[in-house]
Amino acid sequence: MPKLPEILHRQVNDSNLFKVEQLDLRFSNGVERRYERLLGRVVGAVLIVAIRDDGKVLLIREYACGTHSYELALPKGRLEAGESILEGANRELMEETGFGAKTLTEITSLTLAPGYMAHRTHVVLARDLYPQKLEGDEPEPIEVVPWSLDDLYSLSQRPDCSEGRSLAALYLVRDFLQKEAQHG
Amino acid sequence: MPKLPEILHRQVNDSNLFKVEQLDLRFSNGVERRYERLLGRVVGAVLIVAIRDDGKVLLIREYACGTHSYELALPKGRLEAGESILEGANRELMEETGFGAKTLTEITSLTLAPGYMAHRTHVVLARDLYPQKLEGDEPEPIEVVPWSLDDLYSLSQRPDCSEGRSLAALYLVRDFLQKEAQHG
Repeated sequence: MPKLPEILHRQVNDSNLFKVEQLDLRFSNGVERRYERLLGRVVGAVLIVAIRDDGKVLLIREYACGTHSYELALPKGRLEAGESILEGANRELMEETGFGAKTLTEITSLTLAPGYMAHRTHVVLARDLYPQKLEGDEPEPIEVVPWSLDDLYSLSQRPDCSEGRSLAALYLVRDFLQKEAQHG
Repeated sequence: MPKLPEILHRQVNDSNLFKVEQLDLRFSNGVERRYERLLGRVVGAVLIVAIRDDGKVLLIREYACGTHSYELALPKGRLEAGESILEGANRELMEETGFGAKTLTEITSLTLAPGYMAHRTHVVLARDLYPQKLEGDEPEPIEVVPWSLDDLYSLSQRPDCSEGRSLAALYLVRDFLQKEAQHG
């Protein structure tokens, strides 16, 4: 084990949500470089692919501050302290769509941009839905938009649907369900 | 697997790459909220899906600082000033894989997390490849890994392949190519 580097100086920037860390690295070939990465203050995040009995997935239309636009994407949110991935997924689903799920399955976890972010989102498939509304911290009501899993490409061509992790999660769940139907 | 770089020094401070912006918002229903979003100092980014004549796509294995791991993903990079999307895509492809493309097609653009990032990545399909190496700013040689477009789900289950936008781009290009083959 190499000896850990000495921390000479620490300083948190003025953000309430983000912390930026500089790393000076030496690669195995001896090349030295300075990198920067973003440290989110998040326990973990969940992205929920909720499938109705008619096979349609529940998308939501919500204000997105980063692009200052309304975006069509999957329900998502941050895990609360002490909450499991499946518990957090069901809570966020109830808050954002007004449905709970009797069957929850973790499919995979996705990074946003591993080159400069540690952030990970757990993708959860939610089935056997039932009406159950939980009050969330949303500033305004969220519109729920059911969408066919057979029509993902045209969804990706909409200007209001651009989130890579949502599109990846939708395609991965479609593959998962096809494999499940084939192999039982 | 390549040996991970040694961390020589780390410190948290104001970023050279990221700027955090606070927005005080009032929603149409009168509710007021403070949001934070991340402003990247990037002209634009490109993600390249390069298809060989045998149908395999070129992935690269590269050090990812955000997760401090080696990640398998699509070639990508930042546009340089005055460079078009397709020009930048071909330059990054030459730098990271040693191939250029005679045919370049923009498929869509993806956001990472529109809720708190404005960042957009343009997805470019690259075909009719020819050997052409350009020197990039990579600290060490990049390993190129050809992968079948028919095997995306098992790719997503690998612990070293987690980037949502790369997986979304691969599925979208697979759909694009299928539609192209059907409709000519």
